Amino acid sequence: MAIAKGYAATDASKPLTPFTFERREPNADDVVIDIKFAGICHSDIHTVRNEWKNAVYPIVPGHEIAGIVSAVGSAVTRFKAGDRVGVGCFVDSCVGCAARDLDREQYMPGLVGTYNDFEADGKTRTQGGYSDSIVVKEGYVMSIPDNLPLDASAPLLCAGITLYSPLRHWNAGPGKKVAIVGMGGLGHMGVKLGAAMGADITVLSQSLSKKEDGLKLGAKEYYATSDEETFKKLAGTFDLIICTVSAEIDWNAYLGLLKVDGAFVVVGIPENAIPVHAFSLVPGRKSISGSMIGSIKETQEMLDFCGKHNIVSEIETINIQQVNEAYERVLKSDVRYRFVIDIASLAA
Amino acid sequence: MAIAKGYAATDASKPLTPFTFERREPNADDVVIDIKFAGICHSDIHTVRNEWKNAVYPIVPGHEIAGIVSAVGSAVTRFKAGDRVGVGCFVDSCVGCAARDLDREQYMPGLVGTYNDFEADGKTRTQGGYSDSIVVKEGYVMSIPDNLPLDASAPLLCAGITLYSPLRHWNAGPGKKVAIVGMGGLGHMGVKLGAAMGADITVLSQSLSKKEDGLKLGAKEYYATSDEETFKKLAGTFDLIICTVSAEIDWNAYLGLLKVDGAFVVVGIPENAIPVHAFSLVPGRKSISGSMIGSIKETQEMLDFCGKHNIVSEIETINIQQVNEAYERVLKSDVRYRFVIDIASLAA
Repeated sequence: MAIAKGYAATDASKPLTPFTFERREPNADDVVIDIKFAGICHSDIHTVRNEWKNAVYPIVPGHEIAGIVSAVGSAVTRFKAGDRVGVGCFVDSCVGCAARDLDREQYMPGLVGTYNDFEADGKTRTQGGYSDSIVVKEGYVMSIPDNLPLDASAPLLCAGITLYSPLRHWNAGPGKKVAIVGMGGLGHMGVKLGAAMGADITVLSQSLSKKEDGLKLGAKEYYATSDEETFKKLAGTFDLIICTVSAEIDWNAYLGLLKVDGAFVVVGIPENAIPVHAFSLVPGRKSISGSMIGSIKETQEMLDFCGKHNIVSEIETINIQQVNEAYERVLKSDVRYRFVIDIASLAA
Repeated sequence: MAIAKGYAATDASKPLTPFTFERREPNADDVVIDIKFAGICHSDIHTVRNEWKNAVYPIVPGHEIAGIVSAVGSAVTRFKAGDRVGVGCFVDSCVGCAARDLDREQYMPGLVGTYNDFEADGKTRTQGGYSDSIVVKEGYVMSIPDNLPLDASAPLLCAGITLYSPLRHWNAGPGKKVAIVGMGGLGHMGVKLGAAMGADITVLSQSLSKKEDGLKLGAKEYYATSDEETFKKLAGTFDLIICTVSAEIDWNAYLGLLKVDGAFVVVGIPENAIPVHAFSLVPGRKSISGSMIGSIKETQEMLDFCGKHNIVSEIETINIQQVNEAYERVLKSDVRYRFVIDIASLAA
């Protein structure tokens, strides 16, 4: 067992505090990673505050992990010490399912979350990236292209793939009109990725406060959803709308923005049910769907795509001692566009 | 102008009564049809009772029309007197849209309903199939295969295509598990068509009262949705669920019956919004969609498919004098499985 240092939540109502814990002994198929950066995802906050009613404390959050390989097991073939790697939202999955259905294991039972979960043995706790090291099976470790900075690559492992996967699945590309609802940590990645795929991207944000950024990152148009005119002007416009916000919005008004056969895809999880009127779907064969992160294969594909197009997240780097303050700012959407923890600060 | 005889609604609260009216003079591209049979669709009832708030009286309902061509205009090339033909839910559409997008004109603005609508001139009322003749543009007339009886073919023009289109669009076929919710006029067509496409069909009906019929028509399995065990047993089973009922059901429970990437397709229009929880969609990339009848091209394809597989509706034939009584029985689901009016009874 190796000793790891990190920050953990010990209770739903307490701030994260320094925490020392054991990482499991690496097996032959494991990769040991020195974590360099960890992104802060909104779901980290939901989890540690037990808003999803599944918290098992203590919890070291973090599933946007970028680091350097420090050691590999004897059976590892794809990585060696010194490699630049990433780990995302899960670190194991049902082997049977994965074998049958390699490219959507994220939807299969048996998925092992990167933190607040148990390894396949049912006993060993998983702990996440707000820490200085992690031991992960080779099959769940991805390469980060050499031309991408590690810090701004960390958010690709969750925010990036969460947008990349639906953009690909619903065929965003040249000639496709795509709207991204919400210009935050997820949304800004949708703008960058969708534009790089060649799609015609429109941002639908509550206000125009981030319009300049949106256009700079690749959006062709940017509209305020607080303006009723937006819904009149854009009626029947989009092939695909990806909704990154979990606030209560006027869902049927957004469905009205779709073309015939258009798809509205939810990647956030609103607390309440979405009241969809059949009249919003039937007369245009429209759909409302959900999408959740991506498979390991697809995540590597996304990282390679980002390498080719020089895409990373827009970040604000913080020391780990600022993590609780950063959480408060995430809740106020006061970050452009993702916090990344510099894990070197743990040693401070 | 030719004089037509039929039955019409003159008010939301009154029964249908005999009605004489003028059919327009045929143009060069028109087909004149002696109507032989007209199916009774639930939407006829919604319309004449003004439940959709769009009734313009008097209304001759009926958009499941089967008959024989009596005359054709000089420019008509596909039909001649004596041909067996059908007319469905619309008799014209936006020419520009149709030209651009031939196979989904049913979703485009400019659609002209077979009844309770106005022709493209904005003045001439359209009146439906509960009558002895109709004048329809060639492009909206379909051939009924010689081997199919005219009476039981009439319901194919709405009930048939309403199920055929989503079954095709969502790729029902060998290896696909498809559930049909509701075993009525629409549902029983879904069973027949889906089974003929090679899909593995399950009926989900409130009770098992029509189980024997369902299995006979091609379903492999038949479950009662009033039994909670059904939802446990069938969790994660279906690639496609087509919902033909417009009652309030436990939508999220039905979404739980889908596999990863499964689609739930609504073809009925429930009065209230469907409360879909994002947790029912996101963790399996599931979708809820709507589908509405089909294009003219697709409807002809469906009729040809039915000819090849000897598929027609299960019907109960009535005289037109019984139409009001039949409406009451439709509302009680007391018909196996579609009423068809024998138009010859108009002369009685």
